[in-house]
Amino acid sequence: MNTTPAIAAVDWGTTRLRAWLLAGDGKVLAEQRGDDGLITAREAGFSNVLERHLAAMDAPATLPVVICGMAGSRQGWIEAAYVDVPAPINAILQGAIRVPDTARDVRIVPGLAQRMADAPDVMRGEETQLAGANLTAEGQHLVCMPGTHSKWVMVEDGAVTGFGTWPTGELFSVLATHSILRHSLGEQPAAVAAGNDSFRYWCRQAFQDGGDVSSRLFAIRAAGLLQDLTANEAAARLSGLLIGGEIASARRRYGNTGGSVVLVGSGALAALYAEALGLAGLQVRSVDADAAVRAGLFAAARENGMIARKEETA
Amino acid sequence: MNTTPAIAAVDWGTTRLRAWLLAGDGKVLAEQRGDDGLITAREAGFSNVLERHLAAMDAPATLPVVICGMAGSRQGWIEAAYVDVPAPINAILQGAIRVPDTARDVRIVPGLAQRMADAPDVMRGEETQLAGANLTAEGQHLVCMPGTHSKWVMVEDGAVTGFGTWPTGELFSVLATHSILRHSLGEQPAAVAAGNDSFRYWCRQAFQDGGDVSSRLFAIRAAGLLQDLTANEAAARLSGLLIGGEIASARRRYGNTGGSVVLVGSGALAALYAEALGLAGLQVRSVDADAAVRAGLFAAARENGMIARKEETA
Repeated sequence: MNTTPAIAAVDWGTTRLRAWLLAGDGKVLAEQRGDDGLITAREAGFSNVLERHLAAMDAPATLPVVICGMAGSRQGWIEAAYVDVPAPINAILQGAIRVPDTARDVRIVPGLAQRMADAPDVMRGEETQLAGANLTAEGQHLVCMPGTHSKWVMVEDGAVTGFGTWPTGELFSVLATHSILRHSLGEQPAAVAAGNDSFRYWCRQAFQDGGDVSSRLFAIRAAGLLQDLTANEAAARLSGLLIGGEIASARRRYGNTGGSVVLVGSGALAALYAEALGLAGLQVRSVDADAAVRAGLFAAARENGMIARKEETA
Repeated sequence: MNTTPAIAAVDWGTTRLRAWLLAGDGKVLAEQRGDDGLITAREAGFSNVLERHLAAMDAPATLPVVICGMAGSRQGWIEAAYVDVPAPINAILQGAIRVPDTARDVRIVPGLAQRMADAPDVMRGEETQLAGANLTAEGQHLVCMPGTHSKWVMVEDGAVTGFGTWPTGELFSVLATHSILRHSLGEQPAAVAAGNDSFRYWCRQAFQDGGDVSSRLFAIRAAGLLQDLTANEAAARLSGLLIGGEIASARRRYGNTGGSVVLVGSGALAALYAEALGLAGLQVRSVDADAAVRAGLFAAARENGMIARKEETA
């Protein structure tokens, strides 16, 4: 069994960091999770935060590090300038830039920019998940990556040809916390789980409405006043409307793509999206987001010659 | 000239209060505006707040008072239970209830409830504006009442047959203050005025999108990163998307109604909606919301015999 780490892989977002030590065959040898994302690291120093997590995993002093996510933004450690789409996924990984003046070899994978006049968009981190999602080199894939800012990505013959962002998680959060719906959802709305009837019903309604969600929001409040809607039902209804609305909207933009979608997500949220995508009549292939980002970072390390290629380690 | 007040009219909302002394012919003799809406009045006492404003206008001790708005909600002075739609506008006004144990005759106009299974809705205050909007007794009118929670109301032969709420003002506010778009709009986004090219462009885009707005929100942030979008342009774009989306959504629900709409609003917001409704191809008849609520309260006072009817005062 291979227990010598070949690379440290880091998914460094705005508020969170996840780091792994990976063996030469990609196996996970150690893992660290922290709340020291970009915001914290700007204060504490990116190098300090990274070295603390590496030390906690007993990483050798010379172990190279490959990073994706907001650490490569203009507000991050060092800017890894966006790669413009269309872009082959391999080329994106090969565009990783080296952080200067570090004892170790530390590189950051660039994000993607879509410079369309009316649909500009950016991503950082998701491109690496895509690289690790095990998409076939040929053919067309529509990929759904749910989250605070859900991404939908069109991949054709190994290249990202377009993408869009739906801020579904953020809409849920700001409406639940700061709008009149806070009276309906209460202080601590229960997490909505797959199989919830109200979630399913309002997903379907949102499909019929074609992503027009605003007409349905105040009705959640009114249903509390007139129909004794509970806080849990209110949360399920809002979640169904927003996720259903996202799916209806994304399908309108990207068409049917043979009726299938690759879902890259984790945990309860991935289960909720899998259910909603199924209700929309899509065939879903699920990929775990954690596994995908690790595989993508590992691929980036190989593409940049930071570890030997598979055929060389045989 | 008539300078003896016949009635005090009060529009008493959640955060604001406006009060007028009206002569027997409806003319305004005095006006008061305050921030002591429902929230403040619950602490200070509704009677105390009302008497303070009446005293500031030198109202006689026996002057009757007619009130509309949230003061009649369950959290208000006394609950004026919702009247269910469909409801003739005159019947709504006649449903005003008397506040018990007051020296004066004080009555509150009830709000409206729409008890539809999938589209429950409520209003308080707008029903009184409708009564004062000078709608013809016969025929169909689609009425747009923009605001924090915009109302669209279908009036047929003098009766409210249905209505809906679009929380457009609230969406703008929570997105501008609490979402990632706060980085795009800045601390104090400039008020968007009619005639703004960006507002017009994104209104039209929202019409084409049929009210699906969520796909366009993150692009405002991305346009700041990739296309140097200014804070003022970002505000105009968000405003255009949300108002355009509201109009597209409401038209889908209420159809074309002969291509005309009655717009009940005030100031810059009314001008913005007038422009957007015109872009949508609708013929707009504008009614000032302040004048409408005064006229509606005056009509409510007459309907309840609080002042003599016109033919009796001739």
